[in-house]
Amino acid sequence: MDLDDSGDAFMDDAEVISSTEHTGLPTITLGGSSTGPASTGGNGNNLGSSSSKAVSPANPDVFDQHLTGLKDAPRPPKFRNLPYASLQTGLVYDVRMRFHVELFPEEVDVHPEDPRRIYAIFEAFVEAGLAWRDGVSDLDPSYYMGRIDARQVTEEEVRLVHTKVHFDWVQSLSTKPADDLREEEQHPGNKMDSIYLSPATPYSAALSAGGAIEACRAIMLGKVKNAFAVIRPPGHHAEREDAKGFCFYDNVSIATKVCQREFGSLCRKVFILDWDVHHGNGIQQASYNDPNVLYVSLHVHKKGTFYPESSYRDNRPPYGDHLHCGEGAGLGMNVNVPWTAQGMGDADYLYAFQQVIMPIAQEFDPDLVIIAAGFDAAEGDMLGGCKVTPAGYAHMTHMLMSLANGRIAACLEGGYNLDSIARSATAVVKTMMGEQPDRLVNTTPSRTGIDDVKLVLRQQSKFWGSLHPKDPAGRVANLHGERMHDIVRKWQATTLWDEYHMTPLFINRESLSRSFENQVLATANYTEARPMLVILHDPPEMLASVDPRTGKVELHNTWVTDPVKTYTAAAVRNGFSVIDVNMPKHVTEETDTGEHEEVNVGGRVPEATELLQYLWDNYIMLSDATHIFLMGTNIGHWAITLWIKANEDAAIEYVTKTVSFITDVALQACRSHTNDLLSPWYAKNSQVYVARSHNWWSLEFSQRPKKKFGKLMENEESGMSEMLQVHKDTVFEMLLAETAAWRASRDDIDEDEMTGQDAVDEGAIVAPAASGLPPVKNFAPSPVKPGGSSTPTGAGVRSPGLLSPTQVTGSFSARQRTRSPGM
Amino acid sequence: MDLDDSGDAFMDDAEVISSTEHTGLPTITLGGSSTGPASTGGNGNNLGSSSSKAVSPANPDVFDQHLTGLKDAPRPPKFRNLPYASLQTGLVYDVRMRFHVELFPEEVDVHPEDPRRIYAIFEAFVEAGLAWRDGVSDLDPSYYMGRIDARQVTEEEVRLVHTKVHFDWVQSLSTKPADDLREEEQHPGNKMDSIYLSPATPYSAALSAGGAIEACRAIMLGKVKNAFAVIRPPGHHAEREDAKGFCFYDNVSIATKVCQREFGSLCRKVFILDWDVHHGNGIQQASYNDPNVLYVSLHVHKKGTFYPESSYRDNRPPYGDHLHCGEGAGLGMNVNVPWTAQGMGDADYLYAFQQVIMPIAQEFDPDLVIIAAGFDAAEGDMLGGCKVTPAGYAHMTHMLMSLANGRIAACLEGGYNLDSIARSATAVVKTMMGEQPDRLVNTTPSRTGIDDVKLVLRQQSKFWGSLHPKDPAGRVANLHGERMHDIVRKWQATTLWDEYHMTPLFINRESLSRSFENQVLATANYTEARPMLVILHDPPEMLASVDPRTGKVELHNTWVTDPVKTYTAAAVRNGFSVIDVNMPKHVTEETDTGEHEEVNVGGRVPEATELLQYLWDNYIMLSDATHIFLMGTNIGHWAITLWIKANEDAAIEYVTKTVSFITDVALQACRSHTNDLLSPWYAKNSQVYVARSHNWWSLEFSQRPKKKFGKLMENEESGMSEMLQVHKDTVFEMLLAETAAWRASRDDIDEDEMTGQDAVDEGAIVAPAASGLPPVKNFAPSPVKPGGSSTPTGAGVRSPGLLSPTQVTGSFSARQRTRSPGM
Repeated sequence: MDLDDSGDAFMDDAEVISSTEHTGLPTITLGGSSTGPASTGGNGNNLGSSSSKAVSPANPDVFDQHLTGLKDAPRPPKFRNLPYASLQTGLVYDVRMRFHVELFPEEVDVHPEDPRRIYAIFEAFVEAGLAWRDGVSDLDPSYYMGRIDARQVTEEEVRLVHTKVHFDWVQSLSTKPADDLREEEQHPGNKMDSIYLSPATPYSAALSAGGAIEACRAIMLGKVKNAFAVIRPPGHHAEREDAKGFCFYDNVSIATKVCQREFGSLCRKVFILDWDVHHGNGIQQASYNDPNVLYVSLHVHKKGTFYPESSYRDNRPPYGDHLHCGEGAGLGMNVNVPWTAQGMGDADYLYAFQQVIMPIAQEFDPDLVIIAAGFDAAEGDMLGGCKVTPAGYAHMTHMLMSLANGRIAACLEGGYNLDSIARSATAVVKTMMGEQPDRLVNTTPSRTGIDDVKLVLRQQSKFWGSLHPKDPAGRVANLHGERMHDIVRKWQATTLWDEYHMTPLFINRESLSRSFENQVLATANYTEARPMLVILHDPPEMLASVDPRTGKVELHNTWVTDPVKTYTAAAVRNGFSVIDVNMPKHVTEETDTGEHEEVNVGGRVPEATELLQYLWDNYIMLSDATHIFLMGTNIGHWAITLWIKANEDAAIEYVTKTVSFITDVALQACRSHTNDLLSPWYAKNSQVYVARSHNWWSLEFSQRPKKKFGKLMENEESGMSEMLQVHKDTVFEMLLAETAAWRASRDDIDEDEMTGQDAVDEGAIVAPAASGLPPVKNFAPSPVKPGGSSTPTGAGVRSPGLLSPTQVTGSFSARQRTRSPGM
Repeated sequence: MDLDDSGDAFMDDAEVISSTEHTGLPTITLGGSSTGPASTGGNGNNLGSSSSKAVSPANPDVFDQHLTGLKDAPRPPKFRNLPYASLQTGLVYDVRMRFHVELFPEEVDVHPEDPRRIYAIFEAFVEAGLAWRDGVSDLDPSYYMGRIDARQVTEEEVRLVHTKVHFDWVQSLSTKPADDLREEEQHPGNKMDSIYLSPATPYSAALSAGGAIEACRAIMLGKVKNAFAVIRPPGHHAEREDAKGFCFYDNVSIATKVCQREFGSLCRKVFILDWDVHHGNGIQQASYNDPNVLYVSLHVHKKGTFYPESSYRDNRPPYGDHLHCGEGAGLGMNVNVPWTAQGMGDADYLYAFQQVIMPIAQEFDPDLVIIAAGFDAAEGDMLGGCKVTPAGYAHMTHMLMSLANGRIAACLEGGYNLDSIARSATAVVKTMMGEQPDRLVNTTPSRTGIDDVKLVLRQQSKFWGSLHPKDPAGRVANLHGERMHDIVRKWQATTLWDEYHMTPLFINRESLSRSFENQVLATANYTEARPMLVILHDPPEMLASVDPRTGKVELHNTWVTDPVKTYTAAAVRNGFSVIDVNMPKHVTEETDTGEHEEVNVGGRVPEATELLQYLWDNYIMLSDATHIFLMGTNIGHWAITLWIKANEDAAIEYVTKTVSFITDVALQACRSHTNDLLSPWYAKNSQVYVARSHNWWSLEFSQRPKKKFGKLMENEESGMSEMLQVHKDTVFEMLLAETAAWRASRDDIDEDEMTGQDAVDEGAIVAPAASGLPPVKNFAPSPVKPGGSSTPTGAGVRSPGLLSPTQVTGSFSARQRTRSPGM
């Protein structure tokens, strides 16, 4: 079907298209209330009979000719022993919903909410032999979809969801001159965003909402087993008093409330599943405190930067995130599955359905399911940027069909690639009609998809008994737990004291000392003339199995992996001094018991860089170190490169090598506009290990690395712990090669001891005081070099007994004296 | 349908039943190979034609009369545009499979694998109007299930799964005299278990396997959209060379391999879903190393105590646990979902499907799905003891129908309640025919169900990309992690040292010191004349959110809750001495990196009791304590009651009160056959808090508590941390009331200070040495009471500087002197 070639592929609709699509429009008058009460009063006979249509345009015959005398109205079940399986699937399609058009279309850029959308879908149904149309019925029509007449929604029905002001405003459009409409479009004030207007808009919008109602009513009345309403304009963005996002009336919510009212306990609980790629803010608003409407929306959210970002009316922040779960009696009845990224595919949607949506839906146990069926997450839709296939839609439909005794209505929402929506809708309808879903090609969910779904699961586990594990955050708040982070660092400090007599370095700067209290530890010999390894590292990794129900973790099934310690050990064994900086992902504060869901890894970089500068100025530069090795993981790498760029001369002169391990942060370049030497120096003197899972490797320019990114090392591992473990020997080969001359000059270093576990260079460590204090929160007096002590740069007041850098006068290394003025 | 009233409800089968069920049998001869090759050679025309039947019994006309001229053989699709939906569902049913009967039935106890099983199902299909039978066809037969002829399996087909020895043995049964068969049944040697034999057994078994084959072939050939094979004897317990568990030939595995061979790449991957309540050991064996057969079994396992417990042949342990995942190329292709308990229902099965089975199946993407459809997990089946409803089976079927382009065959396995299997099978068939599944009543999975499924998920996440979180155990083993348990206890010790100057008590007994190293801490004043609180407690609880993909836990999102510390704090504030015993759930050993999945809580009780005895003898009894309060959580409670029973006189004389908190262990009674006073004493002097979630409250006798269980306290909480927190004030009211007189005699205790956080009874704690050593692994010299020091009872060698109990001579309390001889 070539949809670009309009007129050719269109058959009985062709005349309508040519007369309405981009040209003049018939005058339409509305008389909304005339047949309203009857049509919502349980009149089951209006199905299949054109006499029940609410109101016709001024010259209805032009448009209604193909609607009269329908041959494909729903029939009774073909086989009474399979009453559901042998019932027809209903179809709502009315060409008059195409009257809502852009009055002033741009030549090039056709508005995505194109009137041809519904025709493309209907035509695809006909071509697949699923829907009847004059001249195409060579097969037994009893197997076709049963046509259900659309009708105009009544004012009273609209006002189940919207205000009278909103209804009146929509109605008023039909009598406004074109220029007024244009003015209103272009200067919308508070009224709306992403909307175009035409005099036919109220008529099309009324048919769209009425079509959704009649589709659901036909199901509830047992006329059809399920139904697809090919309707437009869409509805799920329309709010109580706002047209918005191509939407005027919230079709699905109106149909929901009409059915709840008409069918009472037979249709008490309605499950609305919104797979439009945008959040259905309107539906969420309409059902937010309703315990009998479960609204689940899967949508691209991008942390609130994807449409609908925010409300025009009240500047309310976007509310499609996972934390909006309903309120009052409706708490827990709003489930947002907000994708952090575009590009989600079948596997991600399937994962969300299996992990969260179906368990919730089954627990909710609806009487009716309505799909807010936008197809803009379909592959080929540029606006959505996702890649759900027709098979993916079929599988979702199939799962939903297990609910509510199979009573399921799909109501079109968005979807702008005519071919994509046609193929997707056909797959949905075939499934509704009993065909099997096609097999899926992609069944492995993406990283971000899994994370997004698990976040929703954790949030919703508060409300749904079938979701596990339960979020432990609530319990924690009540129990005044100690943050494990603090426990582990205290343990680390104790251990590093026990094994290497490392003690905290004093950080005398208000902004740093809070974050890095007890996080900077040094071997006692750090002032001496020996190689120095400075490690800026992430906290250790903890691996655990949680209780699947409660989120409780058993201590004996939990491990802390701290491979950085093996670097410290190897360095100490080889006579190096070590400064170990733990960079916490989060700084504990007294009043702080909540969970920190997201850590902005970049956010702590300035602090880390400042700390490195502080250490450089107050400890490293003042030491006699013969070589300086800077090693960093993630933020550490970032901080090192930033520090190098800020101290390019010092770095080139004094830093022997840098070693970086990167899993989570962007690869940092080292380049200077003022110093051409920096980039080649960095390329020569860096080793940069980038995890295989890092984005870098998927970037195009990663194929031809540049000097500014340093010496990139091949790496097979994805986890930081594994990377550190695997590359340790290589790193130390390099460190030892660099320091070979120095070690050769020393008697007390054994060249062969590198691999020995227990062979510590005893000479390298000054024996600790016989009875040292516990090192944490208690800066123990450290052995002081004979050269004497001094006040650290920038330190105003210094507590007595604090470990302090040695200020060197005579015994300082050559580097000290040649320190560049730029530092 | 009254199935007990045989003869009445049976129609055209009635004659057959009366002639075969419990009486004589026709002689049956087998000529297995005659038509075998043809029937597996892709001959699509044999469907619906009785001429294709392999071999008939000696007098075939008697049995075949109702099979000839079938009117309900599969027809072409009714509507070519819905080729799947309008195709028929296939039905295999052959009355001759009822010939396999007990030769020597017991009057009362009919064997559960009753020949009427298949008739009951067939009859239910007919009654539901889904299957055709002479005289009942008042409806258009084109909507019925399409009948597929069963035929005998060939030797060559059998040998795709079984050995020739096994085939020959089965065949030999047809010619053996009844007495020989009885002898073989009763003295089975290595051959089989749970089997009865008759001369017709080989014939019925051959039809059963052949029926499974033809059902699958009809689907693959496109004759039917899916199929239900109502066959017996069942097959999934039959192993390579063993009849077992009512089974002779592994019908499903034979059908699988026949289809793989015949249809090549069109049927390369077969997914066998076994929802029989027993593990399908035969299918697992047949496909264990086959990468193209995914076998998933949901079954009651009860840790290996449920049939099939073990193999007759090789005494192999039962292999239906979650750790059996296939081998070689088939690794990961065997998925056992072993229920720990009976009683599983729809919600548990649904949970397993959503969490594990459907994600795996979709990733596997089969070409054909075969259900090993036993209905012994159905509600009403006494053998299975589970409660899956017909709606539950329908939902599982519906989910499976989304796979393999809807190509799904259900082959009957077990199921022994005739009514249950008839209703369940009908629900399955209706779903296959396109009816909607009924709504589920129970959608909340059980505690054990969730745990079981999560265990499988963790195991299978190694093999399947769509399952998360990944089991961290493998990573841990490689990374040499530190067990968090040790880290936390070290932190606890440091903290208790910092805040209360509590130091480790020396445990000089080999068997105890390993387990309790650093786990026993005491305030320095424990020897003094003041109330003593001894707390035997579980390790602190850790609460965390794990990374949904990797199982990694962020330190800053993890908390340790240690409410026991608040008891210590309150006791210290009120002038008590405290001995704090942490009872690890697992003792870390050097070589120990694996995960400890289950902790037998009872297993550590003897050690805990021994420790309490040791503390009593060496520290508590030798102190001047004015009151002794024993407080225990879980194992601690257990140890305290055991200790009391072993030291009843001492307990009654010296123990002021006991306080117990119980969530996980059985409530322990305190009663003595030699001392009538013990039980009333315990009732009066104990406070026992039992978690609301504890089994105790569901026991009948919990309604009338007895003295021996102590003074049971109402409790609203389920978690240990919450219980400890909620009841702290009550406990201390009691402790303070008991010690009111003592506190009144002391000037330095402030009566009103109990609720103050910082008001520590300074006088109660001896100031620590100015520079104490870190307390852990380093028993610091503790302030020693003026009375001098002594060697603990039972301590052979004592290291200098160890904290030691004070041996009291003159200053000891009256209790010491009146110590009962029984101690």
